[in-house]
Amino acid sequence: MPEPRDPDFARRVRASFARQGMMRLLGAELLAVEPGRVVIAAPVRPETSQQHGYAHAGLAWTIGDSAAGYSALSLTGAGEEVLTSEMKIHLLAPAEGARLLAEGRILRAGRRLIVAAADVWAEDGDAPRRHIATMLGTMIPLRADR
Amino acid sequence: MPEPRDPDFARRVRASFARQGMMRLLGAELLAVEPGRVVIAAPVRPETSQQHGYAHAGLAWTIGDSAAGYSALSLTGAGEEVLTSEMKIHLLAPAEGARLLAEGRILRAGRRLIVAAADVWAEDGDAPRRHIATMLGTMIPLRADR
Amino acid sequence: MPEPRDPDFARRVRASFARQGMMRLLGAELLAVEPGRVVIAAPVRPETSQQHGYAHAGLAWTIGDSAAGYSALSLTGAGEEVLTSEMKIHLLAPAEGARLLAEGRILRAGRRLIVAAADVWAEDGDAPRRHIATMLGTMIPLRADR
Amino acid sequence: MPEPRDPDFARRVRASFARQGMMRLLGAELLAVEPGRVVIAAPVRPETSQQHGYAHAGLAWTIGDSAAGYSALSLTGAGEEVLTSEMKIHLLAPAEGARLLAEGRILRAGRRLIVAAADVWAEDGDAPRRHIATMLGTMIPLRADR
Repeated sequence: MPEPRDPDFARRVRASFARQGMMRLLGAELLAVEPGRVVIAAPVRPETSQQHGYAHAGLAWTIGDSAAGYSALSLTGAGEEVLTSEMKIHLLAPAEGARLLAEGRILRAGRRLIVAAADVWAEDGDAPRRHIATMLGTMIPLRADR
Repeated sequence: MPEPRDPDFARRVRASFARQGMMRLLGAELLAVEPGRVVIAAPVRPETSQQHGYAHAGLAWTIGDSAAGYSALSLTGAGEEVLTSEMKIHLLAPAEGARLLAEGRILRAGRRLIVAAADVWAEDGDAPRRHIATMLGTMIPLRADR
Repeated sequence: MPEPRDPDFARRVRASFARQGMMRLLGAELLAVEPGRVVIAAPVRPETSQQHGYAHAGLAWTIGDSAAGYSALSLTGAGEEVLTSEMKIHLLAPAEGARLLAEGRILRAGRRLIVAAADVWAEDGDAPRRHIATMLGTMIPLRADR
Repeated sequence: MPEPRDPDFARRVRASFARQGMMRLLGAELLAVEPGRVVIAAPVRPETSQQHGYAHAGLAWTIGDSAAGYSALSLTGAGEEVLTSEMKIHLLAPAEGARLLAEGRILRAGRRLIVAAADVWAEDGDAPRRHIATMLGTMIPLRADR
């Protein structure tokens, strides 16, 4: 686990998450906040379905992007924020199940840009979770007061 | 404008859109359905915001992905569906404004896969719209009854 | 056409191109150097083929990446350089023909990063050129003396 | 290690590699051919440099794309081939060293498409190898006789 530059990183991640109306709309919650690793869960509900009743890819993308972004934020300095610059997703299987779990991780934490990844799984009771998406993208650290 | 293979393409697009719970949750609506070009709009609301009050990137991604996917669906044959296989988004500017507009288009419509793109703009009253995102990805046409 | 920040941009692009051993190895040449638009051509030869005798995708990628990168460099200030941070390519058709042409363009020229695109065509005598690839990626401007 | 569908997979990979003029031009060689895992190496030479003397990103891309593609080919049936449909690369560090190593792996081997990844390292004598690039893309399996 990488060393965080800001010992107060978890508070910053939680405060930013709490300000996102979209996370509330999707019913998302933070399951883990560690240096370089953040896990977010969201229920699969009819309101976030696509045309066949599975979770919409937009649900997987949105919590995966946030998991990647907060994984990046956890490694920045106090007073910094993080923006997604670009993000790729591969959808590997239908998002079928009771909830989705997105786990972010960091491939390269530079001063000018951060390369982050996320994987998304679908859970359903006691069945083994399924890997439904993998994501890879670029985050930009910024001074919050710029 | 490419020739549609199914003269009834617009009805298929509208019926699929109406079945997506996620489109209702986001307040999205279909503004245009033409062969190879679909436009979707969604309001920017506190419920779909990120931590600074702009629209969450997940809103842009979700309507952009749907615009690209329905642009692809509009060129398939009767009884076919379309799945997103992979998608890249570049976020070009903050999603600030009253609503977002996503316009899909097709770069290559093959039998086995369709290369689709989308651009997303933010509108605010009479101000010129701003280009906030561009997307490029792969759609897979499938028999609906498989 | 955007205004270049450095009136001497074309000389900087040509000097950098001349230092690339890879461009010589591939037989590539600069066909146009304008602000935000650079065109590179390379012959299709047995030495750069893939297993079916078409041009290897690596040829299209390499001249496309350089066309995108030099399009970005043409808009930077004197004493700056440009690195590719990430790049996506879609291969749209086999690279069949006598030579490939790659044309770069800029979607967003920021201070911290530049979003660039390229399209690659295959030419064969008087036949209409074919669009064989499209690329989209992120370039990072850097001080050359850092 | 996944079970290969064709016990003769390694011969097919080696035969296809031998037909690629581009692999010879770059001095590339096959270091490992296993089901779902292929490793390719190429020397860093002045002929394949970029403007600062490091290896050109096109060298990393080309051997990485081939490593991913042959990893996919190793899991297909007899008489099948594989084409790259789209490929993303993140360049993580300068390609400095004596040679590059690209290792392909498979995330999802479907009947219609294969999601493949590759990582590229730079080696220099006894120093620990450096991770210089990560790649992720889509391969299409095709009948060779189509």
